[in-house]
Amino acid sequence: MMDIFDYPALTTVMYWITLVAVAGSASSGVLEAGKKHFDLLGMIIVAIAAAIGGGTLRDVLLDRTVFWIRDQSYLLVAICAALLTFYLARKKHLSPKVFLIPDAVGLSLFAVAGTNAALLMDVPWLVASFMGVITGIMGGVFRDVLCNEEPLVFQGSLYATAAWVGALLYIWLRYKQVDIGLAAISASLLILIIRLSAIRWDIGLPKYQSRE
Amino acid sequence: MMDIFDYPALTTVMYWITLVAVAGSASSGVLEAGKKHFDLLGMIIVAIAAAIGGGTLRDVLLDRTVFWIRDQSYLLVAICAALLTFYLARKKHLSPKVFLIPDAVGLSLFAVAGTNAALLMDVPWLVASFMGVITGIMGGVFRDVLCNEEPLVFQGSLYATAAWVGALLYIWLRYKQVDIGLAAISASLLILIIRLSAIRWDIGLPKYQSRE
Amino acid sequence: MMDIFDYPALTTVMYWITLVAVAGSASSGVLEAGKKHFDLLGMIIVAIAAAIGGGTLRDVLLDRTVFWIRDQSYLLVAICAALLTFYLARKKHLSPKVFLIPDAVGLSLFAVAGTNAALLMDVPWLVASFMGVITGIMGGVFRDVLCNEEPLVFQGSLYATAAWVGALLYIWLRYKQVDIGLAAISASLLILIIRLSAIRWDIGLPKYQSRE
Repeated sequence: MMDIFDYPALTTVMYWITLVAVAGSASSGVLEAGKKHFDLLGMIIVAIAAAIGGGTLRDVLLDRTVFWIRDQSYLLVAICAALLTFYLARKKHLSPKVFLIPDAVGLSLFAVAGTNAALLMDVPWLVASFMGVITGIMGGVFRDVLCNEEPLVFQGSLYATAAWVGALLYIWLRYKQVDIGLAAISASLLILIIRLSAIRWDIGLPKYQSRE
Repeated sequence: MMDIFDYPALTTVMYWITLVAVAGSASSGVLEAGKKHFDLLGMIIVAIAAAIGGGTLRDVLLDRTVFWIRDQSYLLVAICAALLTFYLARKKHLSPKVFLIPDAVGLSLFAVAGTNAALLMDVPWLVASFMGVITGIMGGVFRDVLCNEEPLVFQGSLYATAAWVGALLYIWLRYKQVDIGLAAISASLLILIIRLSAIRWDIGLPKYQSRE
Repeated sequence: MMDIFDYPALTTVMYWITLVAVAGSASSGVLEAGKKHFDLLGMIIVAIAAAIGGGTLRDVLLDRTVFWIRDQSYLLVAICAALLTFYLARKKHLSPKVFLIPDAVGLSLFAVAGTNAALLMDVPWLVASFMGVITGIMGGVFRDVLCNEEPLVFQGSLYATAAWVGALLYIWLRYKQVDIGLAAISASLLILIIRLSAIRWDIGLPKYQSRE
């Protein structure tokens, strides 16, 4: 997914960080599925959807080769992380909070990589930023839809918001001819800071509740 | 989406009507999401799914370029309509009934455009009509799935039915060599009439309720 | 979907068995939708999603032509089976158990055909087996998501498990140069035996229930 960057070393580093993020998302899938009566394989499938769903939807919409079809590391990491989480969660209570940091890292990496992939295909800026959001959040949405829950990422703590702001920053920096590595790191950091601040101080967007 | 018609003037008119229909569908997404505890951006994403989800699924299935990837007006109109609805809905109660007319207009336009797009790719007639139905109704289905609700469009008032009947009429007229503009207008009007009559006089298909 | 096998006679037999399996899956869709207040056409659409959803997702992910786009028999069989089930279910109580056998046949055929389609595109073995699982189970997942229920296939009786084990056997046999017809029949039979045994003796994978 990250072979799009010009820096071989950075690409390698980001590839490994991405696999960590995939593992974190897969774990969140198991913990969510654990609230239901799913069996082990059901949980693994929810975990896979959580881990690779966002990038998959982006690739299908942009008509690119789906990123995990040629490199089975993504699937393998998601399955192993799901098995490990399943094993640990049966032994002791695992708080979903354990996964907030890898999840936020995943959000920031996925959003920037998704935006970049869209930019490379020369789509309009608003579409490119939306692809970043899709890549960042849709795994979590698929996870919750498969578990028959209202998507958590729609409910606050600036989840989608952080992804969108970071995607827009990345596009603006690239438009201003800023070096791709610098732009990627800046945008990722911004997403991470917004998301972690929102969790820490419970910041959110305005809501509206229908009076029905 | 409408560049498929031979009449430049008609194409322009339909393009603008389509954007109105996109706005109407987006508004329905915000009102539906307002029943949940979604934040502003969550609502915007539900609104986008409601507005462009049907045409997106059709394009992915037919392996065409997704219609909103190259022209960001669709995304922009959906986001603006969502923001406006959010602002108005916080001020005063907005009845979902306000959006029944733009929604019915959207259904009729989307269904005919979807059928036409499929016919151009030379698929069998039953498949072409099903593509029209998908284009017309799946936005509403995605909206309700994301809100963790049973899809409203499956529950009556001839929603999918109107789309399917109109799609079949369009295919039959085109098969009979009727002019494309005339066929499109006739089929759209038929869908509009069926849908609005069904709402007005509460007409529906037979149902069956399992006895469990 | 089955034109991938080298044996014309086997291909024809499997084509017809597949249509029976499509009909069985469509019926399960109507029975599931009957628990909700869906109208006739809503049920037909749920039935179509149950019958062809898995293969559709596989084809979209692998960027193949979606299998029912060129041959409308699949759609036609799904619709007819849905209408028949609707008619019968209004007359007398239909136990979902009636459809367990065609459903298990469908699972085994779809899983093997999906794995084979992926192998032909030269994807890694883990990805190929996962494509088999997707083809086998996602129709049932879409059915339950559209009905706003927790997916039944995640909840036990070795549904996804049977598909995955059979897919892996098929890949191993093909890797060992075993004849394609023999490999397909062995893998399908294994899936059928696992699934039917699991139903008969209520065997399942370990589960874990979160303590929250």
